[in-house]
Parts: sequence; structure tokens; C-alpha cells
Amino acid sequence: MNELLHEISLLSSTCSTLDWDQETGAPAGSVTFRAKQIAHLTGKIHSLQTSPAFRDGLANLSGPNQRELTYQYQRATKLPLELVKRESETSSLAKAAWSEAREKNDFPTFAPHLEKLLQLAREKAEHWGYEDEAYDALLAGYERGAKTKEVATLFDSIASDLAEIAATAVEKSASLPPAFLHGHCPIPAQQTLNHEVAESLGFDFTQGRIDTTAHPFCATLGPHDIRLTTRYEEHDFTSSLFGVLHETGHGLYEQGLPASDFHLPSGQAVSLGIHESQSRLWENHVGRSRPFWEKWLPRAQELFPHLRSLHLDQFLPAVNRCAYSPIRVEADEATYDLHILLRFKLERALLSGELEVAEVPAAWNSEFEKLFGFRPANNREGCLQDIHWSMGGLGYFATYSLGNINSAQLFQAAQKDPAVSSAFAKGDFLPLLTWMQTNIHTHGSTFFPQDLMEKATGSKTDPQPYLTHLRNRFQ
Amino acid sequence: MNELLHEISLLSSTCSTLDWDQETGAPAGSVTFRAKQIAHLTGKIHSLQTSPAFRDGLANLSGPNQRELTYQYQRATKLPLELVKRESETSSLAKAAWSEAREKNDFPTFAPHLEKLLQLAREKAEHWGYEDEAYDALLAGYERGAKTKEVATLFDSIASDLAEIAATAVEKSASLPPAFLHGHCPIPAQQTLNHEVAESLGFDFTQGRIDTTAHPFCATLGPHDIRLTTRYEEHDFTSSLFGVLHETGHGLYEQGLPASDFHLPSGQAVSLGIHESQSRLWENHVGRSRPFWEKWLPRAQELFPHLRSLHLDQFLPAVNRCAYSPIRVEADEATYDLHILLRFKLERALLSGELEVAEVPAAWNSEFEKLFGFRPANNREGCLQDIHWSMGGLGYFATYSLGNINSAQLFQAAQKDPAVSSAFAKGDFLPLLTWMQTNIHTHGSTFFPQDLMEKATGSKTDPQPYLTHLRNRFQ
Repeated sequence: MNELLHEISLLSSTCSTLDWDQETGAPAGSVTFRAKQIAHLTGKIHSLQTSPAFRDGLANLSGPNQRELTYQYQRATKLPLELVKRESETSSLAKAAWSEAREKNDFPTFAPHLEKLLQLAREKAEHWGYEDEAYDALLAGYERGAKTKEVATLFDSIASDLAEIAATAVEKSASLPPAFLHGHCPIPAQQTLNHEVAESLGFDFTQGRIDTTAHPFCATLGPHDIRLTTRYEEHDFTSSLFGVLHETGHGLYEQGLPASDFHLPSGQAVSLGIHESQSRLWENHVGRSRPFWEKWLPRAQELFPHLRSLHLDQFLPAVNRCAYSPIRVEADEATYDLHILLRFKLERALLSGELEVAEVPAAWNSEFEKLFGFRPANNREGCLQDIHWSMGGLGYFATYSLGNINSAQLFQAAQKDPAVSSAFAKGDFLPLLTWMQTNIHTHGSTFFPQDLMEKATGSKTDPQPYLTHLRNRFQ
Repeated sequence: MNELLHEISLLSSTCSTLDWDQETGAPAGSVTFRAKQIAHLTGKIHSLQTSPAFRDGLANLSGPNQRELTYQYQRATKLPLELVKRESETSSLAKAAWSEAREKNDFPTFAPHLEKLLQLAREKAEHWGYEDEAYDALLAGYERGAKTKEVATLFDSIASDLAEIAATAVEKSASLPPAFLHGHCPIPAQQTLNHEVAESLGFDFTQGRIDTTAHPFCATLGPHDIRLTTRYEEHDFTSSLFGVLHETGHGLYEQGLPASDFHLPSGQAVSLGIHESQSRLWENHVGRSRPFWEKWLPRAQELFPHLRSLHLDQFLPAVNRCAYSPIRVEADEATYDLHILLRFKLERALLSGELEVAEVPAAWNSEFEKLFGFRPANNREGCLQDIHWSMGGLGYFATYSLGNINSAQLFQAAQKDPAVSSAFAKGDFLPLLTWMQTNIHTHGSTFFPQDLMEKATGSKTDPQPYLTHLRNRFQ
């Protein structure tokens, strides 16, 4: 079994390498053949993961690794091969159609593909089984042990608070022009700052690096090889820097997992909601804090002369500027979750059949208006903006807000350790990293996400620390 | 069979991707795991290539593809698995030992490994079989159909001419300081020039790119994905530019192969001696010519202001400057082959047992002195400079000089076409590329290298055009 798991991890990480290369500058001509390489390896992995040898090997394991691998085996074998192949074809066509639809701002181009993907998602849910609703079966693939009803209850319980906090935050920022920090930021200088910041937070560049991409992500190419990616705005260094802080959070989690268990669940990240808690921790709780900028503003001023006249008290509100805007990935901390509430509601309704595909643009715009006070200018800035559905990623969005909530809860728990909080106040964030390594990273997938949260903070996911954090920051 | 060949090509090109990444900036920490990934895929490829299904599939093929795949199958299956594994372990230890030996300038650190590699090479040759001498069996792996005796006769026939040409060339350059063209050459400006030049020669950047590495190479990651690599000297743009011209030559060959036959010999490069003919063609026959610099010197002067006062008549001798120097990869056109003659002689003597491993440094230095008129300062600049032997690459060096000879012969044949030569004189090198595509690239491995040369030029490899070219340039 050990050999089988090692083989799977060699092939999966090879796939990640092919994918990483594809997203960081592979020539356009490579696309078709690269897709064949990845499909071939993915097929190999799937057949290993569903092989009789794998099933028999489960008996040689014990504890959480047995539990998790059994779960993965069951999920993989419950889907008929025909469905797996159909999904792969459908989503690859859907991705292309989505891309075209977004380009042309034409929802009907994407609609029939979304319809097929929904049908596939429902079929998958039926094969996997669920207790309350089909959405459960999808969500569980991203967030082990999570139940849709509980997530919905959690989101409902904070929706009005989030709306109120966002309104206050946006109002407070109203006097600050959006281009307040803009100026010429040469990319090499941005790269210098990104590297210095990530390194000082503990990212190990002997086991990782930062490359350029269109849609930033963090990829694990091996147990000691974590790749961060970013993109650059020449007039605003904070765009790339906060992106890098976010990906550094993902990367620190990956670098903190037990490398010797790379082929086992105990050496792998436990869920998207926990992963996102780490990225948001370093992006928001660290990167938008006063101690962080007390340390880094002088360095930024060295690199970007147009900032030299700014005092920290002018700079800090600018990096925490809030506004209602149509695009999720550009959203600030105060309005981000509103984007998620919208998507969670719509995709749940889509899956249950309550909402028809053809009605999505209208439903999106009307929901959006309730939350943001205006309607998106077009579907490109509305229901066509995210790639997730086109990849069959239904049930994914909720984990972004779970991540936000978890990040505040973990940050609050860590700050209770005087060694963490006193160092933090002085701009030394390494004790915070050590706390995360000890309480989160090192456990891999040994515990269910909610048990991990409880073990680390004393309670399961609890939105209060998050609301408190947002209120402190924006009121 | 077709499916099997496609699978092999998917896996091989995935290996190339892993290797390319390793050489273009993968973090140090990735090395061990990356080696495991590559070893795993290499093992898979080997087992597919030696499988009964492969053997049976040969019957479904015909013509050159059947001939070449049968040859490859026989070579692969003639080696016992034990030997293949032993070779892989031995060469991976030897590579590390060579690296350390070169670093410490200590031949004894490498000697026992070279001994083992020689023993392995002899064993492989016995398994493969040969007519005249063991060296034949090794050389054939790089240069299909080549015979050691014939190569030796060819080299012997031109050795004194080469020595005389080198002496004249070096003497003529004596008055020119080596740093004649030096000045500050910012890397982004070098990258701009490299890109513009490679593109104008016909390299398709929608199907390729240029990255930075320590030891430049060209890698094929897919039928439409060819990666060139280079390194930069901040004080001398010609170092990187001529490197790029060389790799562009390799890349144009790869881009010119029939992409639909990527999985078949008919879609693959035929030999190292032909591959090197293409790289040397664009590096030397094009890149060091007057029409090339009539076109490109003005652009270089825009990018590198220190060149602005130079006239073409001063610039051209500087890029064709010759000197006796100890390092092969830095050698100029007039002295390069002397380095090869030395290596070919020594490795042939090593393999036959005529020369003992312990005697290599002394033999190298004494041979070197005969050819170059001085002794290398140390083994680092002598017998430890090349990586080839440490990788088990015995029988490889001869193909560099074959490449030089072939390049002149092909260039002369192409120039007989008035469309090629008149365009060439005006700095338009695309007709030359078309000629190479038609006469060399498109044939893949359909013909043996010598038959391909004959078909393209009217005769098998003939050193006269090369000697004429060198005499015209340096006398």
C-alpha cells in the first residue's frame, strides 16, 4: 500500500507541475498536448485509487489515514467510469464556453453547459449519497464533515451583521480616492518587496518560489517545493503584495505539513475552509495590520518614491479602503463575504432545481442589488465572472467565507498566547506562524476540520471573533 | 501500437517538462523528490518500450518507423534490467561525485566512478553487440549508422588542417583585446534582442519560449512546445546571444519536425550530429556572418549604447575573435574541434582499456598541450570540465564535430539555391530555414543520418565545405 500511495503522490505532484507550468507562461501552442498529458496522468491516478490493490491495502492502515483513504476510495469508486469521463469532457467544453461567454458577455453561450454540469453534479450527489440535500455531497468534497444546513445557518446568523459592517466600512472610506496610493511601481521593485515580505513571514525560498500568472494560486509540486504565483499592476504595488500575502498563507500551510507523510492524508491539507483560513490570516490579519506596516512602510517608501510623503496614519486607511464593487476577487475585507452569500444561495437553489439556469442572470442581479445597492453593469461583471461553475466546482464558494471566519477565530486564539501577541505588536510574526504550525499545519488531515478548529481554539467554527475583528477594524 | 506510442510520448514529454523545470529555477529543496518523479516515469517508459505489447505492435508498422522502433526495442531489451538499474544508480552517484570533484579540483574523487561507468559502458556494448570495437555500440545510440573507424578516419583526415586554421585564426585575433565588446548590457535589453533575433529567424514563440538556466539547452515539452534556455553575462551581450542562436537552431529543427508524428520516429530528430548541424548553422554560418550583423548591429547599438561608436568592420572581427582556451563550451569556431578531437581520442582509448582511468589527467594535459600549445591550469579546466562522462555519455562528443562538418556542408548546399543565397546576402534568412525544413527537418528519422546528408547535399558527410568555410573566414 505504501508503494501505491507513493506512486499516486509522484503522479499527482507531476500533474501539479504540468498545471503550474501551463499557468505560468507555457506557450499558447502547448495547450492541447498538455491537456492530453494531464488527462493521461489523471486517468492513471484514478485507476490506482480505485484498484483492488488500493482497496486491499486499506486493511493495512489504521487511524485517520485509514479513515480518510477509505472515504476517498469510496467516493472514487461510487462514480461509474462513464460518469467520470463524461464529466471530464463536459467540463473541458464548459470551461472553453464560459471563457467565450465571458469574453462576449453572453450568458446563453454558457447556459447549456451549466445545465449539463448541474445535471452531472446531481448525478454525482446521488451516487455519493447525502442526508439532507444533494448539495451536502458536493460540499463534503471540499470541506470534510460539513453540512449544508449548518453552513446556511451560520451564514444566515451573520448576514445582517456583515451587511451593516460593510455599509459602515464603505461609508468611512468614501472620502478616500481609490487611486490614493497609485504611482509608478516598477515590477522588479515589486518583486523585491514581495520576496522580502514572504521570506520574513517564514516562507522558505529554498523550498519554493514566486512566479507570474494571470489568476494567482499556490501549487504544491513536491513535499519541499511550493510555488506561489502573482500578477502585477504597474501603478499599484499593493495589488500584487496582498495577493502574495494571500498565497504565502497557503504556502506556509503547505510547507508546514509533515513532509514525510506527503503521500498520506496526515501529510495533506485538511480542507479548503482551513486552507483559506491560512491565506486570509496572512493577507488580512497580518498584512492589513498596523504592526505590519510600521515594519514595511519604510521599505515600501524606499522602493516606491511616490509613497515617501505619506504618514502611516494616511497609508493604513488606504490599504483598508472599502467599496461596493462587482468583482469578487477584487473585493475588500468588509464586502467580500457578501459576494459569497450571493453565490452560496444561488448555487444551492440551482442544484435543488428551485432556480432555472436561464434565470441565473436575473436572479444574480437582483440578489446583488439587495446586497450591494446597485446592479452589475453586465453579466461579465455579474454571473459570468467566476470560473468555478465552469469547472464543475459547485459547492466550493462557501469555503471562502468559512476561511474568513476560521481565520479570525484562529488569530484570536493565537493572540491569547502572550508570546504571539507581544511579538505581533512589535512586527515579529514568526511566533504566530509557529502557533499555526503547531495547532493546524502539523496535523494534516488527521482531524476533521471542525474537530481541528475545536482542538486549536476551544470551539468549532464560531463567527463571533470574525465579526469582532471586522467591527474593530471598520468602526 | 498507436496508443502505446502515444502513451510513451506523453510520458517522455512529461519527463522533459520535469527536467526543464529542474534546470530553470526549481527550488533547491525539490531535487530529491523530482528525481523520484523522473525515475518513476522513466521506469514506466522503459517497461512500455520493452513490453510484449510493444514487440507485437511492431508487426503492425512498416517502413522507417518499423525499422527504427524495432532497433530501439532491441537495444532496450538487450540490456538486463539489473544493468539498467545499476546504471541509473551509478550515474546518479557519479554525477554528484563529478560535481564535487570539479568543485574541489580533485580528480581522484571522480576516478572510481568513471571506472564503474566505463565498466558499464563496456557491458552495454557487449549486450548490444558491435562489429569492430565496443565504441561503435555506444556511438550508434547517438548517431544511427555511424562507425567509429569511419569517424576516426574523417577526424584524422582534417586534424592537421584544423590545427593550421586554428593557428592562423588565433594569430589574426592576437591584436584584438578579449574585452573589446564589453560594456554594461542590462539583462532585459539582452532578452529583448534575443527574442527579436530568434523570432526573426523563424522561431515561433506561440510554440516556445526562452528561459534562464546555468547550462543552456533546448527541450521539447510537446509537439508545439519547444523551450530554449540561456544565461547572461552583464558585460557581454554576445555570450547570451550566440547561445540563443545555437539553441534556436536546435529549436527550429524541433519546430520543423512533423508534429502529427510526434510519437513516431518519423516525427523525431534523427541524430545528434544532425541536430548539432542545425544549432551550429544558425550560431556560426548565420550569426557570425556579415549580412546578419548588417541587419542587427544597428539594433544592438540602440540597446547597448557602448557599441554606438563601432563600425561593422570593427565589430565583425570581434565576434569572430579566436584564442586558445581551456574550456570547450567557451571555445570559438576555429578551435572548437580541437577540443573534440582530444575527447574522442581519450574516450576511445579509455573504452578499449588502452588508457587507465588514473592516467586521464596526465593524458589529457599532454594531448591538450600538443593541440593548444599550453597545459590547462588544473583538472577543473582540464579533464573535469565536462558533465558528459559522469552521466555515462561515452561516445557522445564525436557528434559535436560531425555537427560542425554537416552544418557547413548543408549551408553550402542551401546556398547553391539562388533564392537562399540572394536573400541571405540581404539579411533575410527565412529561405535558408525553408531549405532546412524541406531537406532536413520534415524527414524526422525516416532516413539514416548519412543517407539524409546525401539526399540533401549529394554526398555523405564531407569535411571539405567545412574546411573551406573556416579558411574563408579566418584566412
